[in-house]
Amino acid sequence: MRIDALVRSIRDMKNPTALGLDTRMGYVPDDFARSFMGCGSPEAGRAAAVYAFNASLLAGLNGIIPCVKVQAAYYEMLGPEGMVCLQKTLDEARRLGYVVIIDAKRGDIGATAEAYSAAYIGDSAPFPADFITVNPYLGYDGVKPFIDDCERTGRGIFTLVKTSNPSSGEFQDLAAFDGRPFYDHVADRVAEWGRNLVGEEGYSSVCAVVGATYPVQGAELRRRLPGTFFLLPGYGAQGASAKDLAGCFDKSGCGAIVAASRSLICAYKKNPGHASNFVEAARNEALRMKAEIFKVLHDVVG
Amino acid sequence: MRIDALVRSIRDMKNPTALGLDTRMGYVPDDFARSFMGCGSPEAGRAAAVYAFNASLLAGLNGIIPCVKVQAAYYEMLGPEGMVCLQKTLDEARRLGYVVIIDAKRGDIGATAEAYSAAYIGDSAPFPADFITVNPYLGYDGVKPFIDDCERTGRGIFTLVKTSNPSSGEFQDLAAFDGRPFYDHVADRVAEWGRNLVGEEGYSSVCAVVGATYPVQGAELRRRLPGTFFLLPGYGAQGASAKDLAGCFDKSGCGAIVAASRSLICAYKKNPGHASNFVEAARNEALRMKAEIFKVLHDVVG
Repeated sequence: MRIDALVRSIRDMKNPTALGLDTRMGYVPDDFARSFMGCGSPEAGRAAAVYAFNASLLAGLNGIIPCVKVQAAYYEMLGPEGMVCLQKTLDEARRLGYVVIIDAKRGDIGATAEAYSAAYIGDSAPFPADFITVNPYLGYDGVKPFIDDCERTGRGIFTLVKTSNPSSGEFQDLAAFDGRPFYDHVADRVAEWGRNLVGEEGYSSVCAVVGATYPVQGAELRRRLPGTFFLLPGYGAQGASAKDLAGCFDKSGCGAIVAASRSLICAYKKNPGHASNFVEAARNEALRMKAEIFKVLHDVVG
Repeated sequence: MRIDALVRSIRDMKNPTALGLDTRMGYVPDDFARSFMGCGSPEAGRAAAVYAFNASLLAGLNGIIPCVKVQAAYYEMLGPEGMVCLQKTLDEARRLGYVVIIDAKRGDIGATAEAYSAAYIGDSAPFPADFITVNPYLGYDGVKPFIDDCERTGRGIFTLVKTSNPSSGEFQDLAAFDGRPFYDHVADRVAEWGRNLVGEEGYSSVCAVVGATYPVQGAELRRRLPGTFFLLPGYGAQGASAKDLAGCFDKSGCGAIVAASRSLICAYKKNPGHASNFVEAARNEALRMKAEIFKVLHDVVG
């Protein structure tokens, strides 16, 4: 099961970090991007530049970071050429041994959810990932096709529970009849959906997205969902610090992975004279981040 | 504004129907599909068959049906070639004068929602549609980038409120602190988000998805959201009848559009000997459906 692979890979590298390839054109250094322009259409040039940027980062961070999270939106906005770039990025990440999450936040009625699942975590998915993020708004029959594929293929899903954005509380924190926030009810169901898909490492293939920007809620969810693995977005550019993450891990420092995108892939921007060293800048930031998280987890785990 | 174009086009054709191009390979008649195989890769053959099927339906239903709803999932599952097919389908539908909805149910944090909006309803969207369906789970900052684009481009969104699937009640009907279902709170916010984007025909560019399979809730939402235009999925194959739709329209028989996919594009399957006449079968079913809805609306409007 890919959830076991994820847990073990994090443990081996001592690094619960996912490299977020949310690659906008504006993130690719100008000089680097320029060399891809002029060959083919502007769209093809942009997609080629993004792919080369991603591939450089994947090569440079291999062995340091165990997991990659690829944000579908940035590839869709580049058109069909962007989707080729998405496909190549996913393929390259898997070839290098990363555990790969496609952050697509899909959710639809049953028949359509089946098609989405086939696209990303099915047996012959054209955009193959180990995990996909899923939106629970439509309820169980919109999630079941993904879970069915998880059962068959050993892949997994991360269901949105409490997201990292500023207005995530607007609906997610709305008090239900019993006084508990809405996301809590979603959390209960996520735990239930995953009950029969627990791997050897004690975590289910049905995982949850929990924003690192809400540390109190995260810690509370950690206590209530002991068998659910968390993806924690919001670290770095979105404002969450390493300290905010601690409560989302279990007592052995496992059970969660921190997504970091801009802070890694745009690390070179802090030293603008050296844009060509974007891989080195990302490596340095990845190692700094790893040490920072490790220290906090060590303090917590004791 | 495209919402005005939608309302007027429905009125001109006296037909509040959206052709749902949820085109699975299994929906394309075998003989028709076969002629596209063998030229290029299997993926390219499948995508070419789907596009040709869509284009035939678009040509055959032009002037009868005012609007097309294209379900993104079925194109994503065909890989990058499917995304070319999606692009060509959207282009062809717009060229023929249809109002075009991309049913993608996207929703993400602000920066990412911006990218999704750019992909589908931005100024130079690679997959250009007049409207996109949006998932509200992340709250306002996940929807605002779409609304900003609506303001600038005159396009629109359909926000999920109460979906048509069997388990839509699992979260959407959960009672909030005030006893009202969760989707009701979403509905309030959708109306608010759209307040400054009302067109000449009295409806806002910020529209709502309301499942035709829940007629009581639909009628209640119609009363509470007089300025919100509804997309009604669930008619036909999903089980809703014309009678179920009536309460979702306003007093003049306007304010909503019924999505029908399988019942139209697979109409030929009721007469298996005549698969080559899939366009004619769809036309006949479209006219039957139009008459059926017209009758119900006439009875209601009086």
